[in-house]
Formats: sequence, C-alpha cells, structure tokens
Amino acid sequence: MNKLKSYAQGQWHTATDGFKPCHHAINGQLIAQISSAGLDFSGMLDYAKSTGKPALAQMTFHERALMLKELALYLMSRKKEFYQLSAATGATKLDSWIDIDGGIGTLFVYSGKGRREMPDHHILLDGPPEHISKNGSFLAQHICTSLQGVAIHINAFNFPCWGMLEKLAPSLLAGVPAIVKPASDTAYLTELMFKAMIESGILPPGAVQLICGSTGNLLDLLSCQDVVAFTGSAYTGLYLKSKPNITKNAVRFTMEADSLNCSILTPDATPDTAEFDLYVKEVVKEMTVKSGQKCTAIRRAIVPAALTEAVAAAIQKELQKVVIGDPAHAGVQMGSLASQAQQTEVRERVAELRQSCDLLYGDPDHTEVTGGNDKEGAFISPILLLNSDPLNNHMAHDIEAFGPVSTLMPYDSLAEAAQLANLGQGSLVGSIFGQSDENVCELVNQTASFHGRMVLVNRDSAGESSGHGSPLPHLVHGGPGRAGGGEEMGGIRGVKHYMQRTAIQGSPTTLMKLTEKYMPKAKTIEPPQHPFKLHYEELQVGQSITTESREITLADIEQFAELSGDHFYAHMDEEAAARNPFFDGRVAHGYFLVSMAAGLFVYPEEGPVLANYGLDELRFTEPVYPGDLIRIQLTCKQKSYRRGKGYGEVRWDLQAINQDNEVVAAYDILTMVASNTEPFEE
Amino acid sequence: MNKLKSYAQGQWHTATDGFKPCHHAINGQLIAQISSAGLDFSGMLDYAKSTGKPALAQMTFHERALMLKELALYLMSRKKEFYQLSAATGATKLDSWIDIDGGIGTLFVYSGKGRREMPDHHILLDGPPEHISKNGSFLAQHICTSLQGVAIHINAFNFPCWGMLEKLAPSLLAGVPAIVKPASDTAYLTELMFKAMIESGILPPGAVQLICGSTGNLLDLLSCQDVVAFTGSAYTGLYLKSKPNITKNAVRFTMEADSLNCSILTPDATPDTAEFDLYVKEVVKEMTVKSGQKCTAIRRAIVPAALTEAVAAAIQKELQKVVIGDPAHAGVQMGSLASQAQQTEVRERVAELRQSCDLLYGDPDHTEVTGGNDKEGAFISPILLLNSDPLNNHMAHDIEAFGPVSTLMPYDSLAEAAQLANLGQGSLVGSIFGQSDENVCELVNQTASFHGRMVLVNRDSAGESSGHGSPLPHLVHGGPGRAGGGEEMGGIRGVKHYMQRTAIQGSPTTLMKLTEKYMPKAKTIEPPQHPFKLHYEELQVGQSITTESREITLADIEQFAELSGDHFYAHMDEEAAARNPFFDGRVAHGYFLVSMAAGLFVYPEEGPVLANYGLDELRFTEPVYPGDLIRIQLTCKQKSYRRGKGYGEVRWDLQAINQDNEVVAAYDILTMVASNTEPFEE
Repeated sequence: MNKLKSYAQGQWHTATDGFKPCHHAINGQLIAQISSAGLDFSGMLDYAKSTGKPALAQMTFHERALMLKELALYLMSRKKEFYQLSAATGATKLDSWIDIDGGIGTLFVYSGKGRREMPDHHILLDGPPEHISKNGSFLAQHICTSLQGVAIHINAFNFPCWGMLEKLAPSLLAGVPAIVKPASDTAYLTELMFKAMIESGILPPGAVQLICGSTGNLLDLLSCQDVVAFTGSAYTGLYLKSKPNITKNAVRFTMEADSLNCSILTPDATPDTAEFDLYVKEVVKEMTVKSGQKCTAIRRAIVPAALTEAVAAAIQKELQKVVIGDPAHAGVQMGSLASQAQQTEVRERVAELRQSCDLLYGDPDHTEVTGGNDKEGAFISPILLLNSDPLNNHMAHDIEAFGPVSTLMPYDSLAEAAQLANLGQGSLVGSIFGQSDENVCELVNQTASFHGRMVLVNRDSAGESSGHGSPLPHLVHGGPGRAGGGEEMGGIRGVKHYMQRTAIQGSPTTLMKLTEKYMPKAKTIEPPQHPFKLHYEELQVGQSITTESREITLADIEQFAELSGDHFYAHMDEEAAARNPFFDGRVAHGYFLVSMAAGLFVYPEEGPVLANYGLDELRFTEPVYPGDLIRIQLTCKQKSYRRGKGYGEVRWDLQAINQDNEVVAAYDILTMVASNTEPFEE
Repeated sequence: MNKLKSYAQGQWHTATDGFKPCHHAINGQLIAQISSAGLDFSGMLDYAKSTGKPALAQMTFHERALMLKELALYLMSRKKEFYQLSAATGATKLDSWIDIDGGIGTLFVYSGKGRREMPDHHILLDGPPEHISKNGSFLAQHICTSLQGVAIHINAFNFPCWGMLEKLAPSLLAGVPAIVKPASDTAYLTELMFKAMIESGILPPGAVQLICGSTGNLLDLLSCQDVVAFTGSAYTGLYLKSKPNITKNAVRFTMEADSLNCSILTPDATPDTAEFDLYVKEVVKEMTVKSGQKCTAIRRAIVPAALTEAVAAAIQKELQKVVIGDPAHAGVQMGSLASQAQQTEVRERVAELRQSCDLLYGDPDHTEVTGGNDKEGAFISPILLLNSDPLNNHMAHDIEAFGPVSTLMPYDSLAEAAQLANLGQGSLVGSIFGQSDENVCELVNQTASFHGRMVLVNRDSAGESSGHGSPLPHLVHGGPGRAGGGEEMGGIRGVKHYMQRTAIQGSPTTLMKLTEKYMPKAKTIEPPQHPFKLHYEELQVGQSITTESREITLADIEQFAELSGDHFYAHMDEEAAARNPFFDGRVAHGYFLVSMAAGLFVYPEEGPVLANYGLDELRFTEPVYPGDLIRIQLTCKQKSYRRGKGYGEVRWDLQAINQDNEVVAAYDILTMVASNTEPFEE
C-alpha cells in the first residue's frame, strides 16, 4: 500500500503508525495511507530557519522570480503524471486543468510580476518618501522586509496542486520558506507534485517541506515571524486561529474559508437578453465544475422575482444535459466529489437546506452515473433549490453544501437584492449579470464591502471573462467575515503578507543607503565622468551632476511654438498670459523646458545609455519667464538589472533650477543602460 | 461629584449606579465617577448605522477631510480648557502638548492627506488596472469601499485626547461612524474634548458616540462590517480579540499593545561623538516624558559592552537633574503616573525585573517631589536597571514596567545587538543611534521585521528628528507580535483599515462608470466641443478627441536638436542610430513627440484650462522615424475638484498613434480647469 511520505529537514519520511486511509473518488478503492507520526515539527521549523531562510534571503526578488519561472517550466514538463493521478480525485480533465495548469500558471504570473513590479533587491519600498521635517534633514520611508520565520500553508482538499502553488509563489518570492500541509483526502496528488519539485533541484534546501498527515503541535511553536495561510472550512480555521499561541504571539493567520457566494441577475436581464443566457450558463458551470467543490462556487442565485421561473426552467434544462460519471469515459462532464465522506456531508447539508427550501432539481440520494458505480464512487447529482422568502428565511444564507448545490432566491428591488447578497455575511466573490451599468454600479456600491472580489458580466465582457469562480493571481482572493477575513494573492499584495512593513525615519543619506534609492536631499556623489558614459555596473545611486545654465529667451519660445505647433496663449500673448492666475506674463512651454533640459544633460555620443524609454511624475512647480537661467541637476536615483538581458533600467532624478535656486520642474527619467559584463539581448 | 456622561444615540447619558472612582493623579483626590450602566449598546450600533453612516456616506473623501480640518480648528480654539484639565492626569505642559496639540495635529494631517492623496469621490482605487484578458474587454481594478458598520475605538489611559483623535481621523475620513471608549482613569479629559466636538456641531449626528465606563456586551454584537481598534495592555487586548463573536465573524481587530521597545547605540558612537550624547538625551527623554507612560518608550537600551559604563554614567547624570513633582510648580519637568493603581503596578514590575537586573538609579518606593506629596500623588522616580547577561536572561525582554523605567543591556557584536532587539518578540518602534550608515543599515536589515517603525538618528538628522517615541500620522503605528500585530495611521493606509478592498472584474466601460476613472479600452464619449473649451463641471470622464495626423520630418528632428541642444546620436547619426539595438536608423526625439503632441491637441485661446502642471507615466513604446504620421488621442481620464478654489484637477489620457495604428507613446497630463460656478482662488 502506498504510504504517503512527508519531506522534513531535507529527508523523505515515512510514518510507521497512525495511518488514515485515502480512497479513490471514482471507485472507492484504497489509494493511499497517510500519517505524519514521527515528524519532528520543531526540527522542521529550525531547519527552515537555519537552511531555507538564509538561502532565500541571499537571493534578490528577481532571482527568486526567475526561480519560480524555472520551477513552473519544470512542472509543466511533467504535468502528464499529475493529470493521470488527478483523475483519482474525481476530477474531469477541465477540473484537473484548473488545478494543475492553473497552479503552474500562478507561478508564471508571480514570476513576471516579481520582475516587473519589484526591485532587483532585498527590500521592497512601500509608497513614496514621507516628508516629516521642515528642512528635509529627517525623512521617512515605509519599507517591507522578509519575515525571518516560516510560512505554514494549510491547504484544502479540492485543489491539491493549485492550493499548494498559489501559496508557495508569493511566499518564496518574499523569501520565506514554507511547510506545506495538504488536506488528507487528496494529499497523494500534492505529494506527487511536491516530489517533482524536490527532484527538480531548483529550490534551495530548506525552502519547502511537506507534512502528509496532521500538523501535531506545529502551530503551538510559532512566533511573530511566522505565518499561517489557511484554506479550508470555517470550522477548522476558527479552531486553528483561536489557538492560544497564535493569538498570544499575534502570529499572522490568513484564513480563506468557504463562503455562500452569490450571483445576481439584474432586472433588465430578461430572457431575451444575452445577459440572461450568460447567467444561466455561469450558474450551471459553477454548480458542475469540480462537482461544485469550489470555495468560490455560486451558492446563492439572486434573481428578480419576475424572472425566477424563467431562470429556474433554463437552469434545469441545462442541468439535464450534464453527463455525470467516471471522467475516464468519453462524454462525461462532471465527476465525483473527492470522497464518500464529502458525499455524506453534502447530503446532510442538503437535508438541512430542504427544511426551508424547495427542491427544484436533482436527487441527493441517487445519481445516474456513466462508467462508474453510484455506490462505490462519491457521486452526487446537481441540486437546485428555491428559497421563496430569502429575506426572512436565513438558512440558505448560512448553510453551505460543498458540492453541486445552489439555491435560487427571488428579489423585488435592487436594494433587496443587495440586502440578500450581504446576508451571506462576507463572501469570497459575488457576481452581477446585466447590461445596465447603472443597475450594476448601484449593486456594487451596496455590496462591495461584503466581498473580496466581484465579477461584472455583460455581453461586452463575457467573451473574455474568466468567470465567477476563478481566482486570479493578479487579484485579491479572500473575503471578509464568513470568508475568513483574509487575503491571498492580489499580485505583489500577496508577497507582502510574508513581509513586515516598517516605517523608517532617518537622514535622507542613511535612507538612500538602506533602500538603494536616492532620497530628496541625500548627499550626492561626484561621478568619475559624465554618468551617461558609465555602464550599468559602474553607476552608483546618488551620483549627480549639475549642468551649466542656459538662458531662456523669447526667441526660444517663439521658435518652439513654431516647431511644436503649440501656440497656447500663455506662451504667446503677454496680456492674455498675465490674465492667467498663475502667470505674470508670457511663460516658456513646459515641454520646451523638458526638451532643453535634455540638451543640457545628455551626452550625445554613443555610449552605455541605450535609450530614454520614459518619464515619471513631472511637475512644473514655478513658471519660467524669458530671461530666466535654467540649470539641471541629474542624479542617479534607482537601478534595476534585467537579468540575462545585458542591460539594466536606471531611473534618474531631474531638477530644473532657476537663477534664484528655485526648482521650476522636477521629474524622473527612465533609461536602459548597457552592462559591461553581459552582451545585450532583447 | 462629577459623574462622567456617555453620549449615546444623540443624547447625553448619566448612569445611576455601578460607578468607579477616578482620582486626581497629583493630589489623589476624587475627581470623577464613571459608569456606563444603562447604556443600550445594541441601540448605539443601530443608531450609528442608521444615522451616522448614511450622513458620512453621502460625503466625499474631500468633504470629510474638510470636516476634519474644521473640527481641528474648533478644538484648537478651545484647547486652553483641555490643558487645564490635563494637569489632573499628572501631565506636564509638554506631556499635555503631545496629547492635545499632537491629537489635533493628527486631524490636520489627515485632512491634508485626504485632499491630496484621495479622490473627491466615494471609492478609493487601490493600484492600477490589472490586465487580465488578451484583448482587454475584461479588465480588473481593486477598489476600497467604506465598511457599512461601526468602528469601536478602545483607547488607553495615557493619551486621552490623542488616542481618541488618531483613531477618529482615519475612521471618519473613511466614512465609518465611531464609538469611542476611553480608559476609565483619564476618561474625564476625553469626555471634555468629546463634549466640545459635539458642541461644535461640525460632525453629522451619529458620526461619534462615547462610552464612559465598560463596553458591556458591545463586542458580542459586532459583524464583519465592524472594526475594533484597540490600544492598551496586551492582556486586555488578547481577551477582547479572542471573544468568540470576534473570531467567528472575523471582525477586524486592530491591536496596538505596549511593547519592549529598544534603542541601540552602535559601536562607533563612542563618548566623544555627537551620537553618544544624542543617545543619552533620548533615553532620558523617553524615560521621563509622560513619566514613561508611552507604549513607544525605550524600555531596553542596547549598548556596546565597552560603552555600557559610560552610557550608564551619562544617563544617571542627566536623570539627577530631572525635577519631579506637581507640574503646576515652576521648574517641574516630570509629573506623576496617571493613578496610584499604576504606581502600584509599576512598583510590582520593577520588583520582578530586579530579580535579574541591577538597580543603577532611582528608588521605586520613594520619590523626592517638588510641590506635591509623595504619598498622595502617583509619583515615581526614574529607574535605570542593568541586565548584564541579556542574551540568557530574558526577563527584561518580557516584563514591562509602564513608567519611567529602562534597562541597559550590553552587547558584543552587531549580530548580538540585533538578536537582543528581536528578543522583544515584536515592537512598536526601535531606534538606532550611530554615524556609521554601514552599521545602521546592517542592524535595520536584521531587525526591521520585528518592528513597526524604526528611527535612525545621527548628527545630520537629529536637529529635525521627531524622536524615538513619537508616532506620526504619516507613518504606520503598530508592530508585530507583542506589539499586537496591528497597524494604525500610516497616512491613507490607516483609512483603508476602515474600508474593504475588493477586486472588481468587468468590461472597461463598466469599470469606468463605477470608478469615475477612464479605463483602457472603455467606450469613449464625443465632447460637444474641444474639451479644453469645457469648464470643470462640463467635462465628463471618457470624453475623447483624436487630432489630425502630423508627419514627422528629418527637418523637424534637425530643428528640434538645434533648439533644444539635444544632439544624441540616435537622432542625429543614421549609422550610429542603426547600431543601437532598439532603432533601425535616426529616430525623432521623445521630447519632440511630446511637444508636437501638445501642438496637435492644445486649444490655444484663453479658456477654462488654466495650466498643464504635470505629466505622469510617459512611456515611449515604439520608435518614431522620419516620415511617420502621428495623431493624438486625448481622453478625459479623471477629475478631482479643489473645493473652495474655483478649479479642479483634470487628468487626461494621451496616446500618440502612428500610421500603422501602433501606440508610440502613452502618458497622462495634468491640468487645472476652471469651474463655471465658483471664482478662482489661489
């Protein structure tokens, strides 16, 4: 019998006792045994901190991002194995695709975002500098640094691959080693993918460990530098997050629990509209994909009272077409639940719901099965219920059957629809189907604070919509209240869950050295030659030059107006300009200022600066009049290397200063600067 | 006898029983009685939701920000009363200044930030749009919307004014009504300032309520839309945040608890340096200001072993000069603790600490008092302790005496200093004194993740430093682990604590209507005339024009080079340009493109557009060659009115597009556009 292995302190570990069985979801046969008996949880934490943490800490965000990409490519090359075993969880090919390709895709997205949106550095800046002193000699900057502890990832049974990878991606990018604990029912698939990760040799030793089985006393050992990221039932989550050690040490606990997500059809979406059809399709999809075992599935379909009958009929018509059975058989569209325990659980919840709801479709106790046996596998038919008085009858807002089960709820007004949505007391996701943006926006305004994500679907967006039930790595996944009150992913927001935000106050020079970013009024450095002659590696943040001054003449303004075509009166007409509240008379074009600035600071010959590809945060702070003398201070502000590309991005601080030492314009320019060690590669 | 009143459901409420006494800190006399008996907590929540919430929700962020400014001005006009009563808390004038002026200053800062950093709107955008579909017909945007519930502000006894105002500012700015619950010992001062707020008539009914006394069952009534912001002891905080209703509903609970904050002296800061003197001064200040009753005070002074004796001597010398007594008497520099209960508490903790630390200065049981009576008032002398083996003896990292008590801890290496700092297991603030940025940065890197704020002081920053112990509204206040794991303030970050972040997915047009910001690929609107002829009120987000095309010629490039002085080879030398990896030959200057763009889209005559004051996120995305035809699409992107100024800020989206319909440059420009209803005012 396949005894699932844990991976602890760099070794595979097989328990000798305490096993629990895992069953094949389709045929009910024993597929694996699971136990974590004998694991040294304290040793695992120490190993992560002493081995995984220093290795990850040495790497920059970009190096970690590239590691994620390499890992994603490796797992992609072995995905056939994962698909094969995934079938045992009752998943169809589409279900497996969400879990396996969806999980690997999350690594790719985090790899890309890590390189685009984070610096090639160890500290992440959070917001701009804060000016907290009059003369600027005492400045502040919020930074995020990696936690020094370990991330404990507790995953749910429904996504054994995605669940692991969507938590690992931000955690590893933050530089925090992880201990992965999959749910027992489907841990065999997590174990297989985890094995592949270890075999790849891509992750440094200690970066990841695996617990197949119970976490024992692990959570009692955590400190303020550790994080628990939990996905699963509200009941288990509540138990874990209330543990005295967790609350006492304020251990970060991110909880993502199932919620009673709703989807609202707006009153304008009558049966003759595209939105009506899209709605019916989405409800059916959310009921049947993964056999409804998604924490984001539509549990409550909130529809205009006048349309309830039509919606019910249309959904039932679609449900009748769904072929349930062993996904190995051609034509099967919906597999089984993950286990017979889940089957029993869903049946019990449906029985409770039926105390106050009418059964419109499905038979909880019997399912017609293609290529499988209703008694052996964890099959269950889609169940559609109707709650006719959902404002007063709250059961269907409270009880979740974690399977292919949804309840229709009629409403009379938009305000009532919002009220029903919010009766879920906090959801991961809500969706709204309708063409009237007015209706849609009103509903969003009334319900957004109860939701972590909202999907607004109409005929324009439907073609590319990723759907109600799909969390995306770019977007926050999590929700208030019943959904657990946590947040995961959301792009770099998710990385910050594994970092500490700290407000740093100090001299601009100290802050510059700490953050590797030039800060206003930091001490500058004289470069050995014009900085545009320096290669990426030779440039230092803080290197600065000040150009000669140039006098701005009326002739300059006239010629610039002629050449650009910009004859705005403030530049051309003395009297009209003086009528403008900001000017005393004709002023130079702001764009001329920026143009002549380049004339002053650019080194014209071929050199390491390949291109000026952009400009940020330009502000014209004082008017420039004919006769003014303008000089430019150019300072190397921030550097970020493009690994493997042969160049780096360099941000420069520019100040245009007049004869009275007033800053008349300030901005950043962005350049690509060639490396002197690596050849250029586009 | 003064019975403190609560303010509930728009009425002042005096309890009839259940009173506890509040004593004058200096003379020990009964000053007030406090009880919340008879309050209807459920009614208070309902009132806040039904009355305060809708009134606040109607206002935009800017309207709320202006309300905060008006409130600040009003409280400032009455501050003499607050100072008078503040003396009863044992506070010196400086102590009162921190509490009263510091609190009112927080309102001012939030008012300014609210208007500068938030839109004049109800929804706050969080980050840029996320591109989640190939063709852009399905887009995402994170938004923050106000919670629909109530904020419960539970404050500590040490800052009866600041504690109330630093929580009210972000809460009211977010549009969330609050119930303020001050600590009983000094609630009389909170009550006085609260009364003034009500008398001002500035806040809408239901926006604030006050509980003098116990919160009863209030926390058991909260839902996922409510927030508890707690400041106080770790013990009480832990009790409250573990309440079953709080954990079950995932009620947001921000906790800010006292922590064992450290201050480190670096090895280079020998007694002959400015940093040594600054350090000694700061430790003494943090021990004596507010009689050490600050959650941010320096409890652990971590100093190089070789300098310990010198530091101890210097601190003792300064402490000897501190005059303790009734702040009403001239020359008194340090008042009393807030109550005799606190005095007893501090004495007990000092006794515990002395089990493993040596007493270097002070007598816990007797204090020389000027103009007061040691027996009647809650006086205590500054106490300096020495922990000679702080790596092994952890008591002084764990036990906090909330008074003028600090412990010296010697270290041998920077790594050891960091280890000692982190033994605090999470602090609100840490500071580092030293001139060597290398030492300072190494310490920050090793300790930042244990701190919510770090202050780096050297001779350059000291002059304007706000000091170790001063939380600033701009900066995060809070810390991990023992400090409670919460965050307050931090500018607009603090406002978001009272809002829900939601990822919204939908068509760009729907998102534009929801957010009042133009989204990429949203449907545009044809304006009735050139948009630069429209006043602020007439402009609509999404209005868009596309100009005629202009051909870029070699002559343009030559003339532009001549006029600007920018002769960069990529513009001037065909062969050299072709050698550049990005170009096939001579290209137009990026700044010429931006300049001629203005020539195409600017309406030259006098009109509502007063000035173009800036430009954001310019990216040159394709090279522009002689012969290319460039047209400009100009779209109204976002509007924000400057209330009372007679103009609004309008952000425009610009796309420069070539003859092949490629976007060659994209950016935002920022203009000030006159109102047609209000006269201009600078």
